Amino acid sequence: MISKDHQNVIISAEQLRRFTTEVFGYFGVPHDDAALAADVLAYSDEHGIDSHGVARLKTYYDLLKAGRINPKPVLTIVREKGSVATVDGDNGLGLVVGPKCMEIAMRKANAHGSGWVSVCNTNHYGAAGYYPVMALQEDLIGISMTNTTKGVAPFNGAEKMLGTNPVAIAFPGLHEPPVIIDFASSAVSYGKVEIAKRKGEKIPEGWCIDKDGKSTTEPAEMIEGGALLPLGSTDTGSGHKGYCLASMVDILSAVLSGANWGPFAAPFAIHVAPSGKQVGKGIGHFFGAMDIEGFRDKLDFKKDIDEWIHTMRATKPMPGTEGVLIPGDPERHAYQLRMKSGIPVNKEVVASLRVIAEETGIPFE
Amino acid sequence: MISKDHQNVIISAEQLRRFTTEVFGYFGVPHDDAALAADVLAYSDEHGIDSHGVARLKTYYDLLKAGRINPKPVLTIVREKGSVATVDGDNGLGLVVGPKCMEIAMRKANAHGSGWVSVCNTNHYGAAGYYPVMALQEDLIGISMTNTTKGVAPFNGAEKMLGTNPVAIAFPGLHEPPVIIDFASSAVSYGKVEIAKRKGEKIPEGWCIDKDGKSTTEPAEMIEGGALLPLGSTDTGSGHKGYCLASMVDILSAVLSGANWGPFAAPFAIHVAPSGKQVGKGIGHFFGAMDIEGFRDKLDFKKDIDEWIHTMRATKPMPGTEGVLIPGDPERHAYQLRMKSGIPVNKEVVASLRVIAEETGIPFE
Repeated sequence: MISKDHQNVIISAEQLRRFTTEVFGYFGVPHDDAALAADVLAYSDEHGIDSHGVARLKTYYDLLKAGRINPKPVLTIVREKGSVATVDGDNGLGLVVGPKCMEIAMRKANAHGSGWVSVCNTNHYGAAGYYPVMALQEDLIGISMTNTTKGVAPFNGAEKMLGTNPVAIAFPGLHEPPVIIDFASSAVSYGKVEIAKRKGEKIPEGWCIDKDGKSTTEPAEMIEGGALLPLGSTDTGSGHKGYCLASMVDILSAVLSGANWGPFAAPFAIHVAPSGKQVGKGIGHFFGAMDIEGFRDKLDFKKDIDEWIHTMRATKPMPGTEGVLIPGDPERHAYQLRMKSGIPVNKEVVASLRVIAEETGIPFE
Repeated sequence: MISKDHQNVIISAEQLRRFTTEVFGYFGVPHDDAALAADVLAYSDEHGIDSHGVARLKTYYDLLKAGRINPKPVLTIVREKGSVATVDGDNGLGLVVGPKCMEIAMRKANAHGSGWVSVCNTNHYGAAGYYPVMALQEDLIGISMTNTTKGVAPFNGAEKMLGTNPVAIAFPGLHEPPVIIDFASSAVSYGKVEIAKRKGEKIPEGWCIDKDGKSTTEPAEMIEGGALLPLGSTDTGSGHKGYCLASMVDILSAVLSGANWGPFAAPFAIHVAPSGKQVGKGIGHFFGAMDIEGFRDKLDFKKDIDEWIHTMRATKPMPGTEGVLIPGDPERHAYQLRMKSGIPVNKEVVASLRVIAEETGIPFE
């Protein structure tokens, strides 16, 4: 079904999950792992995070096909001490390694009050928000971070040195839905620059620099050798703070685990060769879970989260805006719509899925 | 000694520490606690964080004099489970409660791999960066956060609902100095707005809104009923991300510990009455410490931090800037200058210290 805007095709959540699971299975990913990886991608598509769902399936497919990702990783706990551990992901799909390491953090939280797992030798893990949402199922506070391939200039720098390095954390409410925070430490995502280019539009000041480190409003000038700016963008906007945040994520995910950090993180793309210099294994993630009961009565905490939500929602709105949302609201809104009406998938993405269907013989419809 | 810019008086670090310690002692703060509180303030003055050192002493003094802070708190561990705990700060100085709770987190990190302490019933704790620097002395990764009195509008809001809620984290290097991250989740500090007002200057777009929630470049319009904006500032700059960060800090510090969160956090000022509604006790902090050895060989980690630092420093500089700094560089630079030449203290701050000297009989010189 073609949606009204003619850019998207409406596909059911079930169809995408079935297809995605079979694609991972095609490369020998064990069934449970394939379903898990499909679930991580589906989380994005079903919650309106279009950049991190099936839009990326072709890249996972290409990397599996090229043998650059191990379909049957054996995870190893490299080191461990009470509430903390480092796991080697055996170059598996981040979509499989990630949930398994989040599970380890959750087990540790149940045993030790909190659990923290740094992961090396892994790959792109989908949307950061998936992992704290796992923790919510056990009423734990969950945290996740990952470093990613370079795309962002450090504050006052003129070249890509850090990834968009997201941070996600979630807190359960009682009658209210949870607070789910998930954001990249760059001013904007690369996807927004790509969309502007496709539409032939300029981009605002503060998003990007060109190959010489000069501010640019031309998407092409960023794409051809430029870089994204960190959250805060400029000296005036406190761009050093976004750089600090990206650095924190890079060090916790990759330096602490022994993965490739900073500009050495592997590209998530088949046509981009990995950095000649390797300073560790794969990319890195960092997961955390905390047992609320270790701090406070869980029911009291959840009641207070409900009141926190009511209080923030009641903020006087800024004129001309929809007013204050709670982190997680946009994704919940998208979920309600999409589970009823299906998922709008960009036509180009659908074309990439049809290529996979053709090459593998897995039916797409 | 009056410095060249005629705005500041140069005072030795020793003189400030001695005076500050005696002022806290005057109210019956035990000597060790008074020296500890003085050390936290001195950290700011000696490292160029002028807004958080003796510039705040008059406010601590006023609050102690008014009986709004307990000079002899008895800290209680309210709840505990392995690596996590909640501490009630007994309405003590944050400058005393903070370091003691960071110590608890550090002891837990040594025992359980990590330690996480949420604190209620406490007050303003100085510069967030002091606490991770404590952890560095034992080669631990240290983290600190605090909520603060309301000053910042949530994204798309038209009134103050959250504090400037800072985050700090530090990582030890081997031959290089540590990476020390410390930043507020607002676009800028209130101090920057005050300075612009004093100088009769306008402020940039993206810093503040006025009492109606409209963007303003007039400092007075923010000060009289307006609000600071979160990091990212606007829709274009991803201001929702700064709001997410401030929310995370607010919930971990105050909802998790049972302190006053959001707009109910106590004001750090004598002439501002606390919110009529109390949703918890005092304000809240959140401290963390992690044992690097629980994740990875410490020496390997530190070597990699050195290489991370070298790599970031080598980034091609943005034209017209000094190039990429490492988080902590500006404070280290200030420290080197100030320990040699003394600390430049604003004349108005010196006048406030002289008022304390006069009222208490404690010699300032």
